[in-house]
Amino acid sequence: MTNFKPGLLLKDINTPADLRKLTEEQLPQVSDEVRQYIIDVVSEIGNSHFGASLGVVELTVALHYVFDTPNDQLVWDVGHQAYGHKILTGRRDNFPTNRTKGGISGFPKRSESEYDTFGVGHSSTSISGALGMAVANRYKGLPDRQHIAVIGDGAMTAGLAFEGMNHAGFEKDANLLVILNDNCMSIDPNVGALRDYLTDITTSHTYNKVKDEVWTMLEKVSKFGPDARSVVSKVSSALKGSLLKQSNMFESLNFRYFGPVDGHDVIGLSKVLNDLKDIPGPKILHCLTKKGKGFKYSEEGNPTQWHAPGVFNKETGEIVKIVPSSPQPPKYQEVFGHTIVELAERNDKIMGITPAMPSGSSLNIMMKAMPDRSFDVGIAEQHAVTFSAGLATQGLVPFCNIYSSFMQRAYDQVIHDVALQNLNVVFCLDRAGFAGADGATHHGAYDIAYMRSIPNMIVAAPMNEAELRNMMFTAQQEDMGPFSIRYPRGKGVMTEWKTVMKPIKVGTGRKVTTGEDIAILSIGHPGNFAQEAIKELEGMGASVAHYDMRFVKPLDENLLHEIFSKFDKVITIEDGCLMGGMGSAILEFMVDQGYTSKVKRLGIPDEYIHHGTQQELYADVGFDVNGIIKTVVEMMPELENSMSNEEKLKYAVG
Amino acid sequence: MTNFKPGLLLKDINTPADLRKLTEEQLPQVSDEVRQYIIDVVSEIGNSHFGASLGVVELTVALHYVFDTPNDQLVWDVGHQAYGHKILTGRRDNFPTNRTKGGISGFPKRSESEYDTFGVGHSSTSISGALGMAVANRYKGLPDRQHIAVIGDGAMTAGLAFEGMNHAGFEKDANLLVILNDNCMSIDPNVGALRDYLTDITTSHTYNKVKDEVWTMLEKVSKFGPDARSVVSKVSSALKGSLLKQSNMFESLNFRYFGPVDGHDVIGLSKVLNDLKDIPGPKILHCLTKKGKGFKYSEEGNPTQWHAPGVFNKETGEIVKIVPSSPQPPKYQEVFGHTIVELAERNDKIMGITPAMPSGSSLNIMMKAMPDRSFDVGIAEQHAVTFSAGLATQGLVPFCNIYSSFMQRAYDQVIHDVALQNLNVVFCLDRAGFAGADGATHHGAYDIAYMRSIPNMIVAAPMNEAELRNMMFTAQQEDMGPFSIRYPRGKGVMTEWKTVMKPIKVGTGRKVTTGEDIAILSIGHPGNFAQEAIKELEGMGASVAHYDMRFVKPLDENLLHEIFSKFDKVITIEDGCLMGGMGSAILEFMVDQGYTSKVKRLGIPDEYIHHGTQQELYADVGFDVNGIIKTVVEMMPELENSMSNEEKLKYAVG
Repeated sequence: MTNFKPGLLLKDINTPADLRKLTEEQLPQVSDEVRQYIIDVVSEIGNSHFGASLGVVELTVALHYVFDTPNDQLVWDVGHQAYGHKILTGRRDNFPTNRTKGGISGFPKRSESEYDTFGVGHSSTSISGALGMAVANRYKGLPDRQHIAVIGDGAMTAGLAFEGMNHAGFEKDANLLVILNDNCMSIDPNVGALRDYLTDITTSHTYNKVKDEVWTMLEKVSKFGPDARSVVSKVSSALKGSLLKQSNMFESLNFRYFGPVDGHDVIGLSKVLNDLKDIPGPKILHCLTKKGKGFKYSEEGNPTQWHAPGVFNKETGEIVKIVPSSPQPPKYQEVFGHTIVELAERNDKIMGITPAMPSGSSLNIMMKAMPDRSFDVGIAEQHAVTFSAGLATQGLVPFCNIYSSFMQRAYDQVIHDVALQNLNVVFCLDRAGFAGADGATHHGAYDIAYMRSIPNMIVAAPMNEAELRNMMFTAQQEDMGPFSIRYPRGKGVMTEWKTVMKPIKVGTGRKVTTGEDIAILSIGHPGNFAQEAIKELEGMGASVAHYDMRFVKPLDENLLHEIFSKFDKVITIEDGCLMGGMGSAILEFMVDQGYTSKVKRLGIPDEYIHHGTQQELYADVGFDVNGIIKTVVEMMPELENSMSNEEKLKYAVG
Repeated sequence: MTNFKPGLLLKDINTPADLRKLTEEQLPQVSDEVRQYIIDVVSEIGNSHFGASLGVVELTVALHYVFDTPNDQLVWDVGHQAYGHKILTGRRDNFPTNRTKGGISGFPKRSESEYDTFGVGHSSTSISGALGMAVANRYKGLPDRQHIAVIGDGAMTAGLAFEGMNHAGFEKDANLLVILNDNCMSIDPNVGALRDYLTDITTSHTYNKVKDEVWTMLEKVSKFGPDARSVVSKVSSALKGSLLKQSNMFESLNFRYFGPVDGHDVIGLSKVLNDLKDIPGPKILHCLTKKGKGFKYSEEGNPTQWHAPGVFNKETGEIVKIVPSSPQPPKYQEVFGHTIVELAERNDKIMGITPAMPSGSSLNIMMKAMPDRSFDVGIAEQHAVTFSAGLATQGLVPFCNIYSSFMQRAYDQVIHDVALQNLNVVFCLDRAGFAGADGATHHGAYDIAYMRSIPNMIVAAPMNEAELRNMMFTAQQEDMGPFSIRYPRGKGVMTEWKTVMKPIKVGTGRKVTTGEDIAILSIGHPGNFAQEAIKELEGMGASVAHYDMRFVKPLDENLLHEIFSKFDKVITIEDGCLMGGMGSAILEFMVDQGYTSKVKRLGIPDEYIHHGTQQELYADVGFDVNGIIKTVVEMMPELENSMSNEEKLKYAVG
């Protein structure tokens, strides 16, 4: 790895205290150096977010310059904009390990630094979290402690942010500063009425400016004599008494509103922040920034592309695309994106919904092809689900695509609005299993467990692209009721994936490999690891059967009877939590039916798994190919006789 | 049951079409009759909501009079205000069966009537649901179809409602009318900045009025000559261009705002609603109502008390209190309410949080005793949890009390903000198990399954009051991390419940009864049913051991080794879902450890359980006392020899 060189000032900033020794005039240079360091590192290591952190460099510098961090509590929302913050708070030299296994996290993380006051991987939590801190310190008799939530305009669309505002405006003496980092974006362009409103107050005469203008004009009018003065006084008291008080959405919620200010003027920012320190109670600073600011290519290019560009040439702006030598399987996301369009062309009831993840989910393909039938509803998972329920009541078939870990936000809506009413909503749970570099906040670990508890819900997961297409085809058939399909981030296994779709009988698994000694029951993509393992195990003399269960719910009871009648050794594999997951479902069946086979369940253990590549994480938790082989060998000690020494070593026998 | 007599007009209204045959002048009389019918029935049957439906009688009549229901889609949020709606839509004569087993539901229910377009037991879903309907019908080429969401000001504080508004304001041609039923209440008085705002726009000069006044005054000013006119024109264009456009929170979100209007003037309402029919796009009608309107005692009394008063004397307003002949055990809720105060008096780190359920949870006891340490945050479960996380980061110990079924709303916040950061937040999950008359939307069926999947989370449930107190005591000790305690609605079992609190070792169960033949493992309150069953079974010659597990997570592995080493027959009992619940956790242990006992799991089956008394529902799903006895008898067929014929009949042997 290159030895990255921070700039002249930055190299001596080990904590914000060092930053605070500089003069205000030096802040632009520090900002430039932080920005350059981010560009230097991210362009080379790739695997990182980019545009968001570039956009808040000046804000980051100003905040740590003005506030007494870590005593003052600074919350970044969402955390992928916090690279500058990490660099200024003791993690400059570690920054090149960003998002790699054992390296620093791509999000703030309380266990990583005392400057990371709140882990924010999912968005929109900062106002609530910072308000909790503010109320706690008010109670503890620390009224001067400052609490700052930096929240994007995208994150502001989530209901949680509004709930936080509603409470904060009621805690009139809690020391809370919300900084609305308004860059018109989430990962994709931000949408919704609030976005329109922010544009309005930014691009038209601004609120404060108009207020001033009106006052000046009224003053002029009052010079037309005492009668005019009397009318003017009535007008202005009416305005003051009601209209103006209500004339800003944030002030309506009892926040004092300031701004908009230029988020790239670091000196201006530090002055404003200093002033705000002395104003008690809840306040909001509307700060205009540009995602990707200060790097020509990201500033001028497509901000979605530069959200997390991978490795790029910082001189030419060329994003390095690794061209594989042979045809590669597509991402499951692409398969979803193309297949939903294919289905929607044939079935005019199909609609597509995403909460702010059009490019991540590939619903953008449908949004382009069928703009009237596909909806980006903003960061609003709850609404995405209940809106889908509303569509379904009118006989449509919404495909609601939500990342597995974000679906946790809409759990009640799935239970209460969709499943209880037995509505035909298809949930596509993207990023199920390990998300990889995004880490613990983003792994889709729990969905099998939390979805299978819900009555009426079908829980399916494809082992490959063709199966995903067949499941999507199956799900859009009439009167299917609530149907969930989970699949991981990234590539499938079939280069020729544009298969003819056919329906699958709900609740049926399939035998993939016949065997005699032991049975592997897998769900979803890890079935492919089982396939590889079985090939290797064959060479070692093991005859392993493999069943792709396809449905966790309903379980294929016929198939399970067949399996448990035949095999006294069974392994279950899932890329989901072991507590309550598919393995548990199978144990429920087995014990209910009186079978007593030995079952070893492989899956995600009961702990938070941090970041790393998907492959590293599969290996860590023991259900990659090697992990599966080891498990078979453990359950079949007789294999040792036919294993080579090399194999014994590799699979840790003895 | 009394034969309730509807009034002269009401008796002939079998569907809204009948209502629409009346003249506008007859609407006040219909309203009075609907109100009287609600009073007549509810005062006698009890077991019903009351104040909310009284408050919307005129609105209900006007809506069905003006709109073409069921073609036009009407969504009630939250549904306990829909009694008038039910009475007018074919359920007048069934209304006395309200909330009883086999009777009509206390909430709108799609399977009950085509007029119930959306089931709303949990609040704040109506805007999203109705928007989905509106978008669907726009797509289907039915632009004239109307979609109306009636939402309370309490429900409006939930993030989901905001998410719905944010999207609706973006769907500018979707035919959506939101009726803000503003009565200043949820079950308890509504709180938050939005509440302040609504009061503001209601009690100060209203928005429209001020707008008119300012215009009139400016006109007057312009009479002072051409210079004045020119200035006035600038002022007014500035106002029009920006200030006024932004001067109402709902208009800021691209809704057209109308009101406030008197929600008890049924003729006025029907005129306004008629006018609004012709205005396309998203619009909001701010409607002022009084909870409990039209019944002297509820209008003048405490609205929280009249939310669901039980049986009462409609002449005197006296609420019938059944005075039991002997001392009764307290409700678990009261135990919680008194115990948290007792603990907080000793531990100054303890804080109490409720999302809009101060009286339901009994946190109101602490709110009275320690107003600076207890918070009603409004209907905002997500915020309640993340706010608690913020408090915990500063070393406090928040007790966040949320009903089990409402906690589904905050699942992500529990995982992402609390458990992942291993913060000391104590979750008290009230209404775990069967909620009773509230039905499927309110049963706390899933929490054991969804909480135990979360790493770091302690999952506990007390069998009685003393155990609840001990668990609360245990949870507030230092560095406990996330700790959840679930308990049911209603009475415990100990009349002398003010026990001395002592800590419990986390992850330890207790043997309640020694036995030889079979072991019952219970969690929580149903352990008491097991106790009763065991006594009866003793008489039948069965020696049944009983273990109160106390913790689903961590499981008491020592105890389980002891149990599975000794017993080859085991019954698990929980008032939670069988899919992934405690029984499954025990199967996971058993199979992982290589035991092969027969296990019968009792709990809530994989279907939605509708309303009924708790006792009826326990019996229905088979884990009341009789159900437990039956299960033991099934597993021990040898008992038949010692059973009387009566017992054989009762327990359905053979």
